[in-house]
Amino acid sequence: MSLELRKHLEELISLTDEEFEHIHSFFKFKKLKKHQYLIQENELVTTIYFVTKGLLKASFIDKEGKEHIIQFAMENWWISDFQSFYNGMPSVINIDCLEEVELCSISKENLEKMCSENHKMEHFFRVKNSFGYVALQQRILSLLTTNAKERFEQFSHQYPQLIQRIPKAVIASYLGVSRETLSRISNKL
Amino acid sequence: MSLELRKHLEELISLTDEEFEHIHSFFKFKKLKKHQYLIQENELVTTIYFVTKGLLKASFIDKEGKEHIIQFAMENWWISDFQSFYNGMPSVINIDCLEEVELCSISKENLEKMCSENHKMEHFFRVKNSFGYVALQQRILSLLTTNAKERFEQFSHQYPQLIQRIPKAVIASYLGVSRETLSRISNKL
Repeated sequence: MSLELRKHLEELISLTDEEFEHIHSFFKFKKLKKHQYLIQENELVTTIYFVTKGLLKASFIDKEGKEHIIQFAMENWWISDFQSFYNGMPSVINIDCLEEVELCSISKENLEKMCSENHKMEHFFRVKNSFGYVALQQRILSLLTTNAKERFEQFSHQYPQLIQRIPKAVIASYLGVSRETLSRISNKL
Repeated sequence: MSLELRKHLEELISLTDEEFEHIHSFFKFKKLKKHQYLIQENELVTTIYFVTKGLLKASFIDKEGKEHIIQFAMENWWISDFQSFYNGMPSVINIDCLEEVELCSISKENLEKMCSENHKMEHFFRVKNSFGYVALQQRILSLLTTNAKERFEQFSHQYPQLIQRIPKAVIASYLGVSRETLSRISNKL
């Protein structure tokens, strides 16, 4: 029984023990080792994941083989290739583990069933989706309007715990700067 | 009575006449002239808007006074400063009209009331929010991994109708290139 999942759901909705037990039955549980892949390019993604332990990264490999990091996910975050999941297209991204990871997973079919059976869960995911939308809009604004130094400061301020857990080269790729530039910036701060 | 709104809702859910009439009562209607502002920086945004006619742009003005365009919205799109709307923070963006515009608007209070009264509407906005999330993820991927020419091609392919309706200088700002670069690219294609 995932207490982390219950605690997470109850940040937005209240559930009786019976309700949570029923919701819990829609989920599966998964463990992955460091460096293992959760999702690989060209796969059809039919599952979304809630992270109960560990850290993952979602990235895109361009034509020149360069890796661009789209997002990280740690404890209490949801992750998937949502484009593949919602639009039924093959995944264009990879998601792999930066640490040993534990996840709760739910299939598209079960997500739809659970939300249609339980208005509170539909509400939960409406609100969660809106938070996700806002976070991505902030990232777009940041990409459009800030330089490397400002982006690093924003990231350190927003996610101080991630700075400790993610290798510098990976943070540099997320911020869209070279490793040398990032070292110069972080030494100055 | 906005038939556009009903048609739009019925792309995802089915509604009886009585249900739609009740839903409709939560909305207000608004007309704006070309160049008028819908949302201005520093405003607390408590409303989201569904466009039934016309075209708007959402943009961010940086410290140097340069305008960065975040998104457009035309018929059948939703627009607001969702960060301000969901997080209760003052708006950091401006939204203004590129054409004469007609909108259906709903306040946060009415949105929450409507969604809690009607599971179908909660479902509608859960799914809409997920589409919005996917569209923003695509934009992030595009900003991280494509050059000006590729971005223009993607944009023309995805929104051929917008290319006709939006001034070249505004498209250039959306794509993050100079007007000269955009002219060179679009003449070549």
